[in-house]
Amino acid sequence: MADTVVLAYSGGLDTSVAIGWIKEQTGSDVIAVAGDVGQGGEDMEVIRQRALDCGAIEAVVADIKDEFADEYCLPALQAGALYMDRYPLVSAISRNVIVKHLVDAAHKYGANVVAHGCTGKGNDQVRFEVGIQALGPELKCIAPVRDLALTRDKAIEYAEKHSLPIETTKKSPYSIDQNVWGRAVETGFLEDIWNAPIEDVYEYTQDPSVQRDADEVILTFDKGAPVAIDGKKVTMLQAIEQLNERAGAQGVGRLDMVEDRLVGIKSREIYEAPGAIALLTAHEELETVTLERELARYKRGVSQRWSELVYDGLWFSPLKKALDAFITDTQQHVTGEIRMVLHGGRAVVTGRRSDHSLYDFNLATYDTGDTFDQSMAKGFIELHGLSTKLDSAREQRLGGK
Amino acid sequence: MADTVVLAYSGGLDTSVAIGWIKEQTGSDVIAVAGDVGQGGEDMEVIRQRALDCGAIEAVVADIKDEFADEYCLPALQAGALYMDRYPLVSAISRNVIVKHLVDAAHKYGANVVAHGCTGKGNDQVRFEVGIQALGPELKCIAPVRDLALTRDKAIEYAEKHSLPIETTKKSPYSIDQNVWGRAVETGFLEDIWNAPIEDVYEYTQDPSVQRDADEVILTFDKGAPVAIDGKKVTMLQAIEQLNERAGAQGVGRLDMVEDRLVGIKSREIYEAPGAIALLTAHEELETVTLERELARYKRGVSQRWSELVYDGLWFSPLKKALDAFITDTQQHVTGEIRMVLHGGRAVVTGRRSDHSLYDFNLATYDTGDTFDQSMAKGFIELHGLSTKLDSAREQRLGGK
Amino acid sequence: MADTVVLAYSGGLDTSVAIGWIKEQTGSDVIAVAGDVGQGGEDMEVIRQRALDCGAIEAVVADIKDEFADEYCLPALQAGALYMDRYPLVSAISRNVIVKHLVDAAHKYGANVVAHGCTGKGNDQVRFEVGIQALGPELKCIAPVRDLALTRDKAIEYAEKHSLPIETTKKSPYSIDQNVWGRAVETGFLEDIWNAPIEDVYEYTQDPSVQRDADEVILTFDKGAPVAIDGKKVTMLQAIEQLNERAGAQGVGRLDMVEDRLVGIKSREIYEAPGAIALLTAHEELETVTLERELARYKRGVSQRWSELVYDGLWFSPLKKALDAFITDTQQHVTGEIRMVLHGGRAVVTGRRSDHSLYDFNLATYDTGDTFDQSMAKGFIELHGLSTKLDSAREQRLGGK
Amino acid sequence: MADTVVLAYSGGLDTSVAIGWIKEQTGSDVIAVAGDVGQGGEDMEVIRQRALDCGAIEAVVADIKDEFADEYCLPALQAGALYMDRYPLVSAISRNVIVKHLVDAAHKYGANVVAHGCTGKGNDQVRFEVGIQALGPELKCIAPVRDLALTRDKAIEYAEKHSLPIETTKKSPYSIDQNVWGRAVETGFLEDIWNAPIEDVYEYTQDPSVQRDADEVILTFDKGAPVAIDGKKVTMLQAIEQLNERAGAQGVGRLDMVEDRLVGIKSREIYEAPGAIALLTAHEELETVTLERELARYKRGVSQRWSELVYDGLWFSPLKKALDAFITDTQQHVTGEIRMVLHGGRAVVTGRRSDHSLYDFNLATYDTGDTFDQSMAKGFIELHGLSTKLDSAREQRLGGK
Repeated sequence: MADTVVLAYSGGLDTSVAIGWIKEQTGSDVIAVAGDVGQGGEDMEVIRQRALDCGAIEAVVADIKDEFADEYCLPALQAGALYMDRYPLVSAISRNVIVKHLVDAAHKYGANVVAHGCTGKGNDQVRFEVGIQALGPELKCIAPVRDLALTRDKAIEYAEKHSLPIETTKKSPYSIDQNVWGRAVETGFLEDIWNAPIEDVYEYTQDPSVQRDADEVILTFDKGAPVAIDGKKVTMLQAIEQLNERAGAQGVGRLDMVEDRLVGIKSREIYEAPGAIALLTAHEELETVTLERELARYKRGVSQRWSELVYDGLWFSPLKKALDAFITDTQQHVTGEIRMVLHGGRAVVTGRRSDHSLYDFNLATYDTGDTFDQSMAKGFIELHGLSTKLDSAREQRLGGK
Repeated sequence: MADTVVLAYSGGLDTSVAIGWIKEQTGSDVIAVAGDVGQGGEDMEVIRQRALDCGAIEAVVADIKDEFADEYCLPALQAGALYMDRYPLVSAISRNVIVKHLVDAAHKYGANVVAHGCTGKGNDQVRFEVGIQALGPELKCIAPVRDLALTRDKAIEYAEKHSLPIETTKKSPYSIDQNVWGRAVETGFLEDIWNAPIEDVYEYTQDPSVQRDADEVILTFDKGAPVAIDGKKVTMLQAIEQLNERAGAQGVGRLDMVEDRLVGIKSREIYEAPGAIALLTAHEELETVTLERELARYKRGVSQRWSELVYDGLWFSPLKKALDAFITDTQQHVTGEIRMVLHGGRAVVTGRRSDHSLYDFNLATYDTGDTFDQSMAKGFIELHGLSTKLDSAREQRLGGK
Repeated sequence: MADTVVLAYSGGLDTSVAIGWIKEQTGSDVIAVAGDVGQGGEDMEVIRQRALDCGAIEAVVADIKDEFADEYCLPALQAGALYMDRYPLVSAISRNVIVKHLVDAAHKYGANVVAHGCTGKGNDQVRFEVGIQALGPELKCIAPVRDLALTRDKAIEYAEKHSLPIETTKKSPYSIDQNVWGRAVETGFLEDIWNAPIEDVYEYTQDPSVQRDADEVILTFDKGAPVAIDGKKVTMLQAIEQLNERAGAQGVGRLDMVEDRLVGIKSREIYEAPGAIALLTAHEELETVTLERELARYKRGVSQRWSELVYDGLWFSPLKKALDAFITDTQQHVTGEIRMVLHGGRAVVTGRRSDHSLYDFNLATYDTGDTFDQSMAKGFIELHGLSTKLDSAREQRLGGK
Repeated sequence: MADTVVLAYSGGLDTSVAIGWIKEQTGSDVIAVAGDVGQGGEDMEVIRQRALDCGAIEAVVADIKDEFADEYCLPALQAGALYMDRYPLVSAISRNVIVKHLVDAAHKYGANVVAHGCTGKGNDQVRFEVGIQALGPELKCIAPVRDLALTRDKAIEYAEKHSLPIETTKKSPYSIDQNVWGRAVETGFLEDIWNAPIEDVYEYTQDPSVQRDADEVILTFDKGAPVAIDGKKVTMLQAIEQLNERAGAQGVGRLDMVEDRLVGIKSREIYEAPGAIALLTAHEELETVTLERELARYKRGVSQRWSELVYDGLWFSPLKKALDAFITDTQQHVTGEIRMVLHGGRAVVTGRRSDHSLYDFNLATYDTGDTFDQSMAKGFIELHGLSTKLDSAREQRLGGK
């Protein structure tokens, strides 16, 4: 019996050609699946029709922006997820929501193979395949570009030969992946890491060096989730979209970095994530006010490991889930307001306000109302430093140092 | 026999009065010790003379800026030390170099007590006392303000009564600590954490929102230490000073945060550290290019623990020293150049260049010269994800989820 | 208004005298609270009466063995809690259940002070006071022995003078704390850490070097909790008690260690915890079979931090609670059976069986049924080692090493 | 030009056949390399001659037991290396010393390929190949059994056809790897993890349940290395060998575990490591006496990561080297004596003695000589618990829980 293949379909040249290519190479029917995670571009319905025109026996499209925001972006926000302390996992998290819809489609249509369009060099192939095997351990994965020798040249030739309804001439110099959480750009001249990015690379953000008026915003969080902007209720998706707009207009959220890929190489990446960076900045600040010190210190390590796991394609792994349980527990008091100025490429917090605050004015103040009992300090210091003192006394005793 | 007390002397009202106060309260002679760590203000010789005029039997002053830069700021730079991911430990590291000179003086002059001017509420008392006990476990510590009831009012009264050569009238609304690595400010109206700082608070940095031309700088590092700026050789101290100037002129390095003190309370702090932030940014970037991935991942945890230890007054602890051994080992290839644009409050890296780079153009490129063997990926992904797949298969088998 | 003091009452000399002593020193009424956590000795009712006879205005006693087992020992088991990789936190966890009853009594009877009998040198004072402040932040703590100068000599004198119904003559050479989770012993001659313990020290365990028949036991776990022994259903308390008996009879669970106290000193401790060690051994083994690798690796770090927090008196801290959320998530598949031989001081696992097992015979076997695809390995190794290889190539390129 | 292959040669059937097999399959000449790491069995000279008789153009053998003990076992001891808290990395560390000699031979004889006899399912292939690429990034790796289809059946057929001087009839039911640091056994009936091992499996250790007299031993360490046993100087190799004898005679060091392999599967392993376990036990105990608390706490995490890296084949990775720098720093005071009783399968420490001890009798004792200032405790506890108290007060204030 012939296999049925569910294909992660973008509407672009490579995956449009892949529909027929897979059929030719493997004899399998292809079902195309596309999801709108905020990547912009063509209408989903246009994409659905193209898949059918290219030979798919079925094409499934869906607006999954809210699902993506609520179930993937929000956990990343609460985790404080910044891979290598910088990258908000823009592409990394989007693969997982797509995987979910791919596997759902495979189950619904009885497919036994899932295909994606990644090459063999990046992180995304890992995220797709590990995710697919996690949600559908019985499914097989194929990657036409990597496994079935579907090169770009062959794709163009195939598309032209079969008159596929897809443009083959224009090749952008940029390799781009974008969604509501941000935008990733790679391009040839930036492979020389001494070269600086040019303005042309950016789309979500304005040039931060251009003079313009600052924008002050007040974000309200409830248990670690943004629930209002300037007092007006928002969903997670709206929060990201509005801040993409406002922080993007101020040039906030540009990143230019050399990144450690899971496959063992370093690569140069440009990101824009104005909404994500604004939200992460505000959320982190609210945590400094509402999380107890030792919890906050430990959460940094959890945050790092969570980010590495998700970057490494292990969103659906048991460790990721157990870390989620930890993180969820930490968010119960991350409730309150953050005032932030967006300007000149920076999102700067200028105020915090929370009923859940652990900041205690009466303990902190140097004014007369001070309730901190300073006499406690002497004993504290003595015992806090005792083991170091004993260590030093040993050095002295043994004539060391 | 009367004790001899070595006093950490600043030249200000509190410690000037403390000289006589300690004598009155304990009968001990006082030796004043002051070190120039770049705090600016009065000449060290003036300070020395004032100590003697206030009754010190000896006064020792020294320019320890280079020592501070080389032995305290440089390790902090190489550690990537940012407490709570932000604060470059400005005051925290300066206490240790002062402690060293206090204990040296105690040993030289046969003193058995060391005194400092801190209150019982902050971190600095811990850093002083734990440091003193580490370098001189046989020494006793006292804190006149905390232990001998030397309040501000009593200090003014005492100074006027004894006609001490120190101004008592002007009381700055700001509580300030500064050195070459940065500047810390606390003040009454900022104890309300909803209030934003005003320009008046800052001294090391210009207003970042004012329009001005950007400043491009090239930093050269050798084994993790800055050795040249724009091709001109610099010492660590010169690197900090020049970048304080240039990054400060662009408003780089302002921090406004709610901080977890060691004594268990949260406090609001304003910092300026233009040179430190510029150096840390460049150094971190050079590490992304020259450190192997797993080493870089682990170093983040080491960096956090190092920062916590130093913040918590444990500079001289055995764990801090062992972490130093780890960090030193990581720096052997942190050699190369970073190009950075200083502008509008931001220090943005635009280029990296290093013979020690692990970035491999031929592996990274999507061009035809690509040497990465993509066929390796399939096996890698399969085994990378196998344990997650088995976990998922169990869920499915047991009918879970 | 006079304070009312709730006193952690043991029925022994010190706390019996404390009832009157507190009244004398502070004018406060005393309510005695005692809980049976399996420490053995006198009947709870006898203890209650003695408290009243010694002057308490109220005395509350309760059998809290099941509560202790379910809510304190079980989390410790699931955490795999071994402080310094060895000590199962025998005394550390018992303080928390007692604290809970002390604060409940304070709330019920409107007391505003809680008193305990610890000295100022150990860990237990910290556990009591931090716990009390966590559950009753408005309560004040006092420690008669430490704060009100109630020395042993004074206690004997006081008891005799007031004819308190408590023996004052016999002073055991051993300082003992025991409950169902184990037993802790300190004694003078063991303060020389070169001295070996003698048989006389032990009570929960038989001499392991005596020849006797081995005892084979099968433990059944459900989601990380023991639910049956040799096929017979048990509660957590029964599991501990039965294994105290059976493992104790084989000399299992003796510990002799030099321990890092929270107050900064090292102390010599002897513990016996036959049931705890047998359970921890079996539970850990079931985890090796049912936890995915990366989850298991991370859990070791969580386990260590959990143990340190609990040892350090931070049972009720927010970090401990967030770690609990992580741990609970890990236990969902820790279900199955462990066969163990108890003999000669050792609890040795000899078999594991679980529907939730991740051990896959068909992947693991070297027999012909093998389903592991060995061709995957080459690609895996290549990419797993790539960053190390690039690092080495750099060394070679630069002529290093 | 034909390749020259350096082959990791054991003298057994598979690698003996591989010599000719590689020649047939690839046309390459083969140089056999064998090292004595204490695996016992045939004389190295016999093995060398067999390699030549099987067609190797060169055969290199060496006694590398001391090198293995000093440069591989000792770092493992100082790291406290126990993978999954149990396995002392017996096979894992031996691969690295062999890799070093393979690469040295490749460099000496101008070979460009290195071959090993591992299958595609285990950890050892990873250790060989990653190690080889680290020390010789320019070298290619092949695995005849995995890559050149050299199955056991083909090996027997080939050996008989070519009359190779190697026995082909007897096939042990056990798959064994052994060296001076320990012995690993896998076998068919133990692939059912409910089955217990039988005595027949063991060779380095006697049955611990047999009654015999205990053996008391005193180990002297200097900076973390064993330097004397019962007062008689030993090298690291002698220490291991003597303790293999003495601890083995008492049944110490047997392990039966389900292990997480790097390739993603769980496997059942039996180990014997009497000398390693005795040394690790004594060394860890000396650390409890000589390491400061925070250093000891952090070292546990370092130890775990070190063990995982080495287990995962990353001995030569930069992170492993940086962790070595940390560990070396920790060992400077691990000097002193440990008295230990070996008996009934257990190595039990009964005494510790060290000039470098941080245990302070005068601080620890409850006797009258006590120098610990108990009045320090109150302040310490107050501030130690303050952040937890504030967290609890918030709960109360908000009416939570």
